[in-house]
Amino acid sequence: MSKGINTQAVLAMRGAGYYSERTAGARHVINDAGTMVIEALAQTPQTPRLRIADYGAADGGTSREMWDMVIGHHRANGDNRQIEMLYTDLASNDFSTLFRMMQGMQGDPGHAYQSRYENVFVHGCGTGFHRQLMADASLNLGFSATAMHYVSVKPMEIPTHLHAACADPESRAAYAQQAAQDWEHILLARAAELIVGGRFICLNFGIDEQGRYLGNTGGQHMFDHFHKYWLGLFEDGSITADEYKRASFAQYYRTMDEFCAPFNDPDSAVRKAGLKLKSCHSKLTKCPYEAAFLAAGGVGGTMSNIDYANSLIPTMRSWSETVFRTALEGRDEDDINQIVNRFYDAYRDDVAANPSGHAMDYVHIILDIEKTA
Amino acid sequence: MSKGINTQAVLAMRGAGYYSERTAGARHVINDAGTMVIEALAQTPQTPRLRIADYGAADGGTSREMWDMVIGHHRANGDNRQIEMLYTDLASNDFSTLFRMMQGMQGDPGHAYQSRYENVFVHGCGTGFHRQLMADASLNLGFSATAMHYVSVKPMEIPTHLHAACADPESRAAYAQQAAQDWEHILLARAAELIVGGRFICLNFGIDEQGRYLGNTGGQHMFDHFHKYWLGLFEDGSITADEYKRASFAQYYRTMDEFCAPFNDPDSAVRKAGLKLKSCHSKLTKCPYEAAFLAAGGVGGTMSNIDYANSLIPTMRSWSETVFRTALEGRDEDDINQIVNRFYDAYRDDVAANPSGHAMDYVHIILDIEKTA
Repeated sequence: MSKGINTQAVLAMRGAGYYSERTAGARHVINDAGTMVIEALAQTPQTPRLRIADYGAADGGTSREMWDMVIGHHRANGDNRQIEMLYTDLASNDFSTLFRMMQGMQGDPGHAYQSRYENVFVHGCGTGFHRQLMADASLNLGFSATAMHYVSVKPMEIPTHLHAACADPESRAAYAQQAAQDWEHILLARAAELIVGGRFICLNFGIDEQGRYLGNTGGQHMFDHFHKYWLGLFEDGSITADEYKRASFAQYYRTMDEFCAPFNDPDSAVRKAGLKLKSCHSKLTKCPYEAAFLAAGGVGGTMSNIDYANSLIPTMRSWSETVFRTALEGRDEDDINQIVNRFYDAYRDDVAANPSGHAMDYVHIILDIEKTA
Repeated sequence: MSKGINTQAVLAMRGAGYYSERTAGARHVINDAGTMVIEALAQTPQTPRLRIADYGAADGGTSREMWDMVIGHHRANGDNRQIEMLYTDLASNDFSTLFRMMQGMQGDPGHAYQSRYENVFVHGCGTGFHRQLMADASLNLGFSATAMHYVSVKPMEIPTHLHAACADPESRAAYAQQAAQDWEHILLARAAELIVGGRFICLNFGIDEQGRYLGNTGGQHMFDHFHKYWLGLFEDGSITADEYKRASFAQYYRTMDEFCAPFNDPDSAVRKAGLKLKSCHSKLTKCPYEAAFLAAGGVGGTMSNIDYANSLIPTMRSWSETVFRTALEGRDEDDINQIVNRFYDAYRDDVAANPSGHAMDYVHIILDIEKTA
């Protein structure tokens, strides 16, 4: 981990609920996974108490409805076991918002499951999920959504783009190698934490069988647009060559093959640690903001183009802004705000001028993993 | 909990390490308790793994050296059991600083025990310690220092002072009743969490056999000074009558008798829940800032009076400022800053004019509690 660029600062999300309020799409994907989680939990050994972990949970907002549903299901079925929920993210995460949301002190109290149900204990862990985060064999079910595309370190800055999915072969290979190593660390850590019979369900951003990924599903290409506006800021002299380069996302979208590789090799450390892949499939989730726009009649309908642009850009901004802000580190805050606003305003103006094909569809690779003896 | 004044906002500490950096005295008291903790842990059942909780830990800074010492002791003795450390505080607590400190990303890395030792997992819990915070019978040792003098709600505002320890009989009785109820809740929650043979060691602010308490140990009376300057701001028209009244501390210093009461009654819920008091004693810790001043020769020595005042006031300010800021809620931030600065400047100027007797000695009541079958 000593080489490469440390990503702790890069990954700081905007706090105070900003992330979860602007990620309706992520929440929908997670809610759909609730049934899978309930079925998996029903198949795990009936330990005296349940420990569940949600890895890379940010402020916990996108998965809160799902956990509320899962816990409600258990209680309705007479399963009154005590439940410890461990939310993990980086140390910089906004754990205060998370704790407040679960207790009904912030956000819609309707899903504040800690106050709705007895004997549910909410904990946080501020250590990255590439490491083991709790005692051996203490976890019934691990869950992670839309988090494990982050690499633990950036192996290099990408010279001619800002995302590995669109990078030159050399950069892409470097990110692929880092992501493979991270994935092994992630899986070995979970193998240690899980009880025998425990499950790890993860919904990761990735590349599906048709080569599609987040924001690149046939219409306008989101990351190419990001790159275009960022390059434009360099070309008009607003940012330096170094700032242009530093905006590489600390992300890698693994292909399905890459996700499955450690499970397909019987001699892999992951297999030897007892992990077994029960299923893997891809899932496309249409952009909920575009869906709302189309439902309103699309261009010429009851939602104006600019209103659509103003609904779409914040969902992109919620998770990407930190990358650009970090690339500008060293400038004063007003300067950073002004540049970053210009960047997103350029994207917004393009969408407003011609919304057609602009959207942020999600592509998830969904894995159900079991810890065997 | 519906009556009275909610204290969630009142209790928000200043973040980013400010608290622990300015509380050398609290750290010394905790370090002294390290031996007690080590002995208690040695007497608890040898479970496959250890779970330890630190209740009301703020940013974890004041107890970090102690836990580093305790864990180091275990490892040096060949006890390599995995350890889960659960830090608890209110949701508003600065958990990010806490997590960073344990990983060596902030503060002196010399005591960043999570990075110094293998198999130590640090978790946080943002729910108040008056409630159960983890699964039944999952805790080997609970610890709390300088935290449980906070009451869960203020039963009333104190009309003529700002601390229950100096209040009129009626206010004092109301705070005493709230504190007794809180203490029972605290103990019953710990009784549920502890394994049989587990221990709860707490170092609480309280009133000792001689009637002494924090900042009132024979010299100048800290809370009377707080009250004098706050009243002065009301009398000169700087704050309103309502603001004057709202600065009641959400605190109660229990006497040793009050701490011991639930253990002395064989029919108490606490005794029935299996808790037994192994020991209770008081401890006076001299103010480290005054000690440094006296070591430098006191008045006329090598430390100037103003330097002493500038070292002493921040340690008082670190935990008390939030009370005054909250009392001023509704004013704009600059206004609040200006009033609060004037308040502490008045105290500083008094100390600088005549340092004699100004100090913040600590008075702790130290309890060692065991969970029996």
